[in-house]
Amino acid sequence: MATYDDSNIFAKILREEIPSFKVYEDDETFCFMDIMPRAEGHCLVIPKTPCRNMLDASPSQLAACMATVQKVSNACLRAFGADGITLQQFSEAAGGQEVFHLHFHILPRKEGDKLRPPGVQGDMDRIREQADAIKAALGTD
Amino acid sequence: MATYDDSNIFAKILREEIPSFKVYEDDETFCFMDIMPRAEGHCLVIPKTPCRNMLDASPSQLAACMATVQKVSNACLRAFGADGITLQQFSEAAGGQEVFHLHFHILPRKEGDKLRPPGVQGDMDRIREQADAIKAALGTD
Repeated sequence: MATYDDSNIFAKILREEIPSFKVYEDDETFCFMDIMPRAEGHCLVIPKTPCRNMLDASPSQLAACMATVQKVSNACLRAFGADGITLQQFSEAAGGQEVFHLHFHILPRKEGDKLRPPGVQGDMDRIREQADAIKAALGTD
Repeated sequence: MATYDDSNIFAKILREEIPSFKVYEDDETFCFMDIMPRAEGHCLVIPKTPCRNMLDASPSQLAACMATVQKVSNACLRAFGADGITLQQFSEAAGGQEVFHLHFHILPRKEGDKLRPPGVQGDMDRIREQADAIKAALGTD
């Protein structure tokens, strides 16, 4: 497996070299909106420290990410009236990975909905509103 | 959200009331083959203690599951010459969940493959061979 390359776009987001719609952060993790959303509220959880994906992550990176995934997922249920969550994690290109910094996709789902096709940029105003809705729901924790 | 119901089939597998193709277990987690495989080596990681899904799991259940997911995933790369892993976790029916005991789907992937359709039972002899291949690869850890 290739090694970690800190020129990936999520490393740049962590370094604030490029902007993101931030949802949540703590000492170990960062959560922000996916700008190619496959569902209303689609967001990503990443560790603040480098690792390529689930295959090379440390136990503490994985545990910290999952704690944030759970916290943000429950906030998404409240924020969007969602009924469930589809969680995806892609490791290596064959597994579906496109950005090589560990990330978990949180996809809030409603009964009977379909995921939107991948790779289509969303409306930035709507994405910003969704980030605000999740942050507001997190504030009710 | 509904509460945990211990009549689900994964609880029955843990109680050995119904059989499974076991791949791995430790004090906190159990891994066995999905008999409706969407990829060669498709297996499931579950906690031994009850929880419904990712939304109500404890931090230690999530951390233990992810440690086993990583261990088994790396074994799958070796066992099947896979190039990556697609990890899925479905919480609540709207999220894709069908059995209401927390489980993570490990889907070993090769470059250019496609996931098989869901809900199609696999060949039991092949599934048993794949369980044996993962166990053998785990033995080389």
